[in-house]
Amino acid sequence: MNNEFYTLTTYLHQKKITYVMEDYIEMLYRKSLLNEPVTITHLSKLLHIKKSSCSKMISKLINNNIATKSPTLKLTKEGLKIGKYLYYRHEILTNFLTILNKENFKLEQVEKIEHFIDPLTLKNLNTLLKNITS
Amino acid sequence: MNNEFYTLTTYLHQKKITYVMEDYIEMLYRKSLLNEPVTITHLSKLLHIKKSSCSKMISKLINNNIATKSPTLKLTKEGLKIGKYLYYRHEILTNFLTILNKENFKLEQVEKIEHFIDPLTLKNLNTLLKNITS
Repeated sequence: MNNEFYTLTTYLHQKKITYVMEDYIEMLYRKSLLNEPVTITHLSKLLHIKKSSCSKMISKLINNNIATKSPTLKLTKEGLKIGKYLYYRHEILTNFLTILNKENFKLEQVEKIEHFIDPLTLKNLNTLLKNITS
Repeated sequence: MNNEFYTLTTYLHQKKITYVMEDYIEMLYRKSLLNEPVTITHLSKLLHIKKSSCSKMISKLINNNIATKSPTLKLTKEGLKIGKYLYYRHEILTNFLTILNKENFKLEQVEKIEHFIDPLTLKNLNTLLKNITS
């Protein structure tokens, strides 16, 4: 895991990135990895959120220089950096809980916990995972 | 860990136990283990909460048959059952994160995550802990 992630927690607080905003950024990052263009209609469906709420949140992300709309939604360089962290946080926690809970793994557990996991816990979970699976 | 804990999550939802209420119940349970009488003044200091807010929350717990006040605060039989679960949840998560993060362990990380850990994850964390430490 990249060391620059360590500085991101303070940054996320400074930018006042809420847990809901994190879900938006993570989803936009996933789509950027797949090179898939995303519209507000598409994103609102993916996040099970009303189109009007989605539109408001995207305006916030644009005002915070995290996303752009021209015309499809994209993360800025800054947004991509945050998205990468949120994506890896999700993946590491998913891997850990899948190994821990096996056939009873539930994504809901990841989605509830991920927002509260700090970078140090994440880094050490990643190391633990490597030790368990090596 | 006691199997009866499994049924508690649904129960906590039915009773509409909020995360703040959980903190109260856990603290009252800790004090019951030490056989220490607790007043609202004392509890509000322990939880870093205004006395008036504490008083309101205690009324809610009394109305829900979770605590009594006569005159010091005590958990009912039902409250003790919930408290026992919350206490073990806290302890297991603290032990796991202490082993994971070693000298950089922060209680704040436990306090943020604990409310979202489900009984299955908790049981499997406990098993993992036993394997790691045995």
